[in-house]
Amino acid sequence: MTRSTVHARAFMPYPEHPVPHAASGPLQGLSFAVKDLFDVAGYPTSAGQPHMLAQSGIKTRTAPAVQALLNAGAEFVGKTVTDELAFSLNGQNAHFGSPVNGADPLRLSGGSSSGSASAVAHGLCDFALGSDTGGSVRAPASHNGLFGLRPTHGRIDMAGSHALAPSFDVLGWFARDAEVFARVAEVLLQEAPRHQPVRLLMPRELWDLLSAEVRAALQPAMDQLHIKLASAAPSAAPPLNMPLDDLTMAFRLAQGWEAWQVNGEFIRTQQPVLGPGVAQRFEWSSHVTADQYASAQALRTQLKARVLQGLGTDGVWVLPTMPDCAPLISQTDADLEAYRGASLKLLCIAGLTGLPQISLPLARHQGVPLGISLLGPENSDALLVGLARQLAPAV
Amino acid sequence: MTRSTVHARAFMPYPEHPVPHAASGPLQGLSFAVKDLFDVAGYPTSAGQPHMLAQSGIKTRTAPAVQALLNAGAEFVGKTVTDELAFSLNGQNAHFGSPVNGADPLRLSGGSSSGSASAVAHGLCDFALGSDTGGSVRAPASHNGLFGLRPTHGRIDMAGSHALAPSFDVLGWFARDAEVFARVAEVLLQEAPRHQPVRLLMPRELWDLLSAEVRAALQPAMDQLHIKLASAAPSAAPPLNMPLDDLTMAFRLAQGWEAWQVNGEFIRTQQPVLGPGVAQRFEWSSHVTADQYASAQALRTQLKARVLQGLGTDGVWVLPTMPDCAPLISQTDADLEAYRGASLKLLCIAGLTGLPQISLPLARHQGVPLGISLLGPENSDALLVGLARQLAPAV
Repeated sequence: MTRSTVHARAFMPYPEHPVPHAASGPLQGLSFAVKDLFDVAGYPTSAGQPHMLAQSGIKTRTAPAVQALLNAGAEFVGKTVTDELAFSLNGQNAHFGSPVNGADPLRLSGGSSSGSASAVAHGLCDFALGSDTGGSVRAPASHNGLFGLRPTHGRIDMAGSHALAPSFDVLGWFARDAEVFARVAEVLLQEAPRHQPVRLLMPRELWDLLSAEVRAALQPAMDQLHIKLASAAPSAAPPLNMPLDDLTMAFRLAQGWEAWQVNGEFIRTQQPVLGPGVAQRFEWSSHVTADQYASAQALRTQLKARVLQGLGTDGVWVLPTMPDCAPLISQTDADLEAYRGASLKLLCIAGLTGLPQISLPLARHQGVPLGISLLGPENSDALLVGLARQLAPAV
Repeated sequence: MTRSTVHARAFMPYPEHPVPHAASGPLQGLSFAVKDLFDVAGYPTSAGQPHMLAQSGIKTRTAPAVQALLNAGAEFVGKTVTDELAFSLNGQNAHFGSPVNGADPLRLSGGSSSGSASAVAHGLCDFALGSDTGGSVRAPASHNGLFGLRPTHGRIDMAGSHALAPSFDVLGWFARDAEVFARVAEVLLQEAPRHQPVRLLMPRELWDLLSAEVRAALQPAMDQLHIKLASAAPSAAPPLNMPLDDLTMAFRLAQGWEAWQVNGEFIRTQQPVLGPGVAQRFEWSSHVTADQYASAQALRTQLKARVLQGLGTDGVWVLPTMPDCAPLISQTDADLEAYRGASLKLLCIAGLTGLPQISLPLARHQGVPLGISLLGPENSDALLVGLARQLAPAV
């Protein structure tokens, strides 16, 4: 796979337009790419959807989060391919193709922030912005061996982006390097990464979902976390006592209802051609009722209270980011859908609760990367980033 | 099917941009649409391909043929969906959808000038521009009950358009009404439509391809042509004595070779996702050799000489535009490919020779339109249009 092919598949081929950045600042010398869900003045925003691209026009304003990076001296190098309307975890787009996995071209990159993860993993830029509604930063971070944060919901301004499900959507980013990751964090979070001793808690319900092989693959990472971040060995988190199937369904219903509120009129009136999976998910979403949404929202409140209670003042969950390493491209759509279902059981907690989760590239399985995650209380983002940096020398 | 759905599926959803036209002129009061293969200042040009759309940028110049229409007082109302890279006869686009057939929403519109034909057939504008490489004006004209001309190759400036196969590509247009069609012709051909008695010739090789039912469906149109345009009944054209399979293959080879010269680098380096059929045809095209191209070009010269000799000074071929009425949307890809193969036997003559062919909406079959065509010598375009107008009162 040549570098130019990797580039062509990660980036949208928009005509270049100068995007000025500050001559100096905390991100001076760093280059970054932006998922094509966020507006950059001088470029369209496709959200990975051709019809959306056609109607976008050239944006005249840059999303404030992107502008903050430019103001901090980072250099914009391009917009990256996203899974269609960000409604996928695969890293495939029926119209704009599949960005190349950073570790193995025979595997999917994960998505929906697929191009951003691919660009960073292949060294085409230092960091890249993505968004995470149901796992769209965490999944590709795990699959490409990158640091990736899903921040506290509402922490980073999402203005100037195409929404999928607003009560879930957050802006996240990727870097290969914890130091770079922390520099970006300080700009976007407006808070310096920090660290303090934490109590590592293992949510057994989630760990029990893994195969013995994946658990074994994550064990060295667990040991590393224990040694570097905590005084005591990880202990069991208080049980959630909420069936994961119920949580996953609540996630699907709440996300689906909101996704249809946001995109339904576009889909109904303009009849864009949607790729496989995406079309079915929107069709399913169109049938979610307001009552189902209300019930799902109530469950979110309950779940958040339980997780926060379990974390206490100094607890941080350690959890697998994904149930396995990146799926092979050759997998069938049905296999991918099953993998998506298994993944959502792990991914849905942060989405439902709005709590921050960082995926760390500390493990490998079948010769390719596998992430492990830390999840903390609201606005513990800077702590999670600080802990990641503390681990960095050994990465 | 609501009017807004028909509109959404015929037109590209670009943000509106004012396109000035002359306050008066021969086309004053007429509205027109432009296949999204021709540049219009203030709009991108997608050629029906999302990657091409992404890299297009906003065009700053209007194609001269479009400008001529604006200068003549016609009002531009939008850009229309084209089959992907114009490399299809179906009227389907895997990324931008399928424009609605003007006569029956259960049938395909035909393509690649699908949106233009659909827009005119549904009365969304008075006329529309398309392009014809292998039948992309004639097929949708036949399938939507419209007048449609494939002009003499080279007669109308193709500057500011995305090429498919330059030695075949021509700009054509559609109208419901022969009078409107003739007004547009006078502007684009820079020659007034004319008429004179013609000798109608039937190329038996082509008529013999039809089923008895389709032949019967075309008989009233034949009678009308005889009564209105010619003193004598149509007679047999001198036989071509060239196997139609050879001609069709020469068409495929020459078109394929040129299509790969034009689009190969884009496809190879940028790896755009191409829809079903289009991907296979480009893949096939990439294997055509320069020798095969040269042989095909030689056959074109030979064919042109024979057709011209057969036409003499006052001869005009009468031929079926298409082997049948528009295919049902529910047909399989394999059935559509077979229909394409049968269609090319009829369509390839004008493409290979560069001679003008007009499709006339004079027949119906299975309750929907079916075209019949006139094909004349080089630069008989204004004559063909004049003959069409002569038929018009009875249409």
